[in-house]
Amino acid sequence: MRRQSPLQTKSGWSTPDRIIVKGFDLCQDLMGKVSLGDMAFLELTDRLPSPSESVAFNALAITLVEHGITPSALAARLTYTGAPESLQGAVAAGISGLGSVFVGSMENAARLLQEEIAGDSAKDLDELAHDIVNRYAEKRQKIPGIGHHFHKPVDPRAPPLFSIAEDNGLSGKHVSLMRKISDAAEKKLDKPLPVNATGAIAAVASELGIEWRIVKGIGIMARAIGLVGHIREEIANPMAREIKARVEEEATSLLRKT
Amino acid sequence: MRRQSPLQTKSGWSTPDRIIVKGFDLCQDLMGKVSLGDMAFLELTDRLPSPSESVAFNALAITLVEHGITPSALAARLTYTGAPESLQGAVAAGISGLGSVFVGSMENAARLLQEEIAGDSAKDLDELAHDIVNRYAEKRQKIPGIGHHFHKPVDPRAPPLFSIAEDNGLSGKHVSLMRKISDAAEKKLDKPLPVNATGAIAAVASELGIEWRIVKGIGIMARAIGLVGHIREEIANPMAREIKARVEEEATSLLRKT
Amino acid sequence: MRRQSPLQTKSGWSTPDRIIVKGFDLCQDLMGKVSLGDMAFLELTDRLPSPSESVAFNALAITLVEHGITPSALAARLTYTGAPESLQGAVAAGISGLGSVFVGSMENAARLLQEEIAGDSAKDLDELAHDIVNRYAEKRQKIPGIGHHFHKPVDPRAPPLFSIAEDNGLSGKHVSLMRKISDAAEKKLDKPLPVNATGAIAAVASELGIEWRIVKGIGIMARAIGLVGHIREEIANPMAREIKARVEEEATSLLRKT
Amino acid sequence: MRRQSPLQTKSGWSTPDRIIVKGFDLCQDLMGKVSLGDMAFLELTDRLPSPSESVAFNALAITLVEHGITPSALAARLTYTGAPESLQGAVAAGISGLGSVFVGSMENAARLLQEEIAGDSAKDLDELAHDIVNRYAEKRQKIPGIGHHFHKPVDPRAPPLFSIAEDNGLSGKHVSLMRKISDAAEKKLDKPLPVNATGAIAAVASELGIEWRIVKGIGIMARAIGLVGHIREEIANPMAREIKARVEEEATSLLRKT
Repeated sequence: MRRQSPLQTKSGWSTPDRIIVKGFDLCQDLMGKVSLGDMAFLELTDRLPSPSESVAFNALAITLVEHGITPSALAARLTYTGAPESLQGAVAAGISGLGSVFVGSMENAARLLQEEIAGDSAKDLDELAHDIVNRYAEKRQKIPGIGHHFHKPVDPRAPPLFSIAEDNGLSGKHVSLMRKISDAAEKKLDKPLPVNATGAIAAVASELGIEWRIVKGIGIMARAIGLVGHIREEIANPMAREIKARVEEEATSLLRKT
Repeated sequence: MRRQSPLQTKSGWSTPDRIIVKGFDLCQDLMGKVSLGDMAFLELTDRLPSPSESVAFNALAITLVEHGITPSALAARLTYTGAPESLQGAVAAGISGLGSVFVGSMENAARLLQEEIAGDSAKDLDELAHDIVNRYAEKRQKIPGIGHHFHKPVDPRAPPLFSIAEDNGLSGKHVSLMRKISDAAEKKLDKPLPVNATGAIAAVASELGIEWRIVKGIGIMARAIGLVGHIREEIANPMAREIKARVEEEATSLLRKT
Repeated sequence: MRRQSPLQTKSGWSTPDRIIVKGFDLCQDLMGKVSLGDMAFLELTDRLPSPSESVAFNALAITLVEHGITPSALAARLTYTGAPESLQGAVAAGISGLGSVFVGSMENAARLLQEEIAGDSAKDLDELAHDIVNRYAEKRQKIPGIGHHFHKPVDPRAPPLFSIAEDNGLSGKHVSLMRKISDAAEKKLDKPLPVNATGAIAAVASELGIEWRIVKGIGIMARAIGLVGHIREEIANPMAREIKARVEEEATSLLRKT
Repeated sequence: MRRQSPLQTKSGWSTPDRIIVKGFDLCQDLMGKVSLGDMAFLELTDRLPSPSESVAFNALAITLVEHGITPSALAARLTYTGAPESLQGAVAAGISGLGSVFVGSMENAARLLQEEIAGDSAKDLDELAHDIVNRYAEKRQKIPGIGHHFHKPVDPRAPPLFSIAEDNGLSGKHVSLMRKISDAAEKKLDKPLPVNATGAIAAVASELGIEWRIVKGIGIMARAIGLVGHIREEIANPMAREIKARVEEEATSLLRKT
């Protein structure tokens, strides 16, 4: 006979007159006192942020909300066209595309920083950075968090994120290692490889104690907000049907001639 | 020949050194200055909130983040179990369940308030409320936004939402109509039918100028945040496999005996 | 204390050496003997089809597999671009768009036929058809299952479906009512309104005993097959990134000039 | 200026009186002549199967339709409970969980077989199998396609799949290599490691010319069919709300005591 394991959650519960979320009384402790960004921090760490942490977390989270016309935003709009009764389905379709290509590198960068810093207390950060760059070079792999194919010479989001972190006392070992990796990589590969938005977010999220396994979640929750904005625009000023019509015309034009 | 219609967005765009979101320079105007909740308001209305609007919007948004063990949270956790490589897929699955049963009534309540107030300037709010209650009673339909099967006698989220709205100068016609509908319904049906969380959120969202067609989107973005929290808990302290094992054992036990 | 209700399934179960699906031994009774279409029939009705039913069901199911470039196929392709690690996420995104606009009318037509035929045994089918047409005309609603904006004068899928049904002894009351509705509507509205693919599928599915509540499911399972085909083509000969690039260029061109 | 690349599809297109799918006239060439399984084969390979291929493909596809109570089936049912207006959303949620844990090994096994057989024509299959087993043993990785934690001593689906393949002239190099890998692994590791369903499906799919990159798609399309069956059962005999209630009660019981 299989032995049952217990089911447990700390997420929340309620009685007829009270709602408890992560140990807080929603109506008395949170409503009117805590912002949406702070609630997100609570979900990611099981505690409310300090005022400094709140500034830094909100800064990194808003960076991820809106990237204009992305494959994910288009997927959401096209889905809405076929199922306008299901706003949730359109957002879900958009979120399904937030995978390894666009959001995944954030997780990889956070994992790298957190594992290296947790792992080897004997080495100093310069040595760690040097080792990391050499290791990736040997495997001919791209180091996550540095360089950008479009935002050149510098990803404009990285410097303000780092200075917000510094102004709020959150520029610790993870931020430092991320920067040293960029320096070491630039020397080794002899080309500009500044920390990008992904690297800065991964470093600051690590300073905030957000575990790498859930760092992608920051991008997903932020983009859910942006996707709702895209569907709102699609309702008011649609483009999905026109896109479909154009693609269909061009993509089947050779077939039609045969 | 089909005539093409133009494709246009106001969502955002970027150059190598600048990122524009809804007309704002992300790095100069938004990062470090604007919270995640205010970004959500921007996506829902195309403008940043005033400080008062920000307080009210954040209060209503956080109300929707975390409802503990819901079917949606369980769907997200079960999905993660089969596809841990795809955090986005688990959140998408959870969001797919935010439909007519749990989030839909918010849209219905907002639509009712916004259409009634936009529609008939001759009637005063008392008359409107009276008419609405009679109309629903004739069709034997439930009025959205009042009463609650579990949170009795009063949904504890409604009073603080209304007082936050009032404290911030946002207790206008929509809030007033929602309350008058509750009063009129209680008289007509002779039982307690106080405004519930759904009704309060719909009323305050309407005061904030958020169109009813996208009101469900507030619930979806908020719950995306909560779903990330559930998957984080599932990683650390899983329950999905145990749930599956228990359900399978019980649900197939009769079959196994034959 | 809440009273538990029992959990039960007839879907399937297994032991180390046997797998039972809907009461059949998968390895002995089904593999090599039953086709994918027949398994789908089994899932939709809890029984295997007769040879005649199999022909008719497979004919209607394959009609729904592939519609070329649809919003749903594009959503799947765009999703794959961002998350190639998750083929399942791309298919899920495509399926999320199979809603009221493209697949919903099948459900509505099947519901109409099944409710009318189950409901009023006193009237003959001509009377029923006449009443239905009048009822929809009064409410100024479109009758599901007749007319087509593109496939004119006749949807080419309807006649072969009806003749396959007839050849297989499955041209009963539901098929007859669907045709009579078309005749009555053409007379009443004085324009060609032949039964379309949706109407023919709904009628034949009803003859096969498939309940209207799950008729949309035939479209969803069929299109899941087609979506896998689209992702296969996207892997070999991608278009999603090009679509995104073109839309972005055009849709943000006005913003870039300001 | 970016150079546009052309958009092209071979999926299908239509005129008012014809519908072309993968080069076939849907109404004349396919309806009534081709089964749902054969359409699936067409989507996976761009050609219709021979009668022998059809038997083998249908056999492997139906193996994947229904696995009883799985996390994926439960996610679909829970999603339906919250959004009954969106059957498609429930299926999409279920599909989102068909990831690396449950369907992924099929892809890995097919990749292994196809790459090894395409790669090294000098070695014979015994050598290849021997090398593969040693390589995985060195990396201490599990070889995909052999052994099963539950179906012991032999996965009952593998032998009939292999004999159907053999009876239909489809027992070629891929099937042979899969079996030799099992033999070599059993010798090397000195324990029973027979080919499992995943390995047999991967081998036979490879014989059928289905590329490993899309092999997971067979599982996804098959399970979409099964998920529709689960939602049909959920409508008639629901379990999702009861599951949610039970989990909530147990998982929050400790919190309630504090």
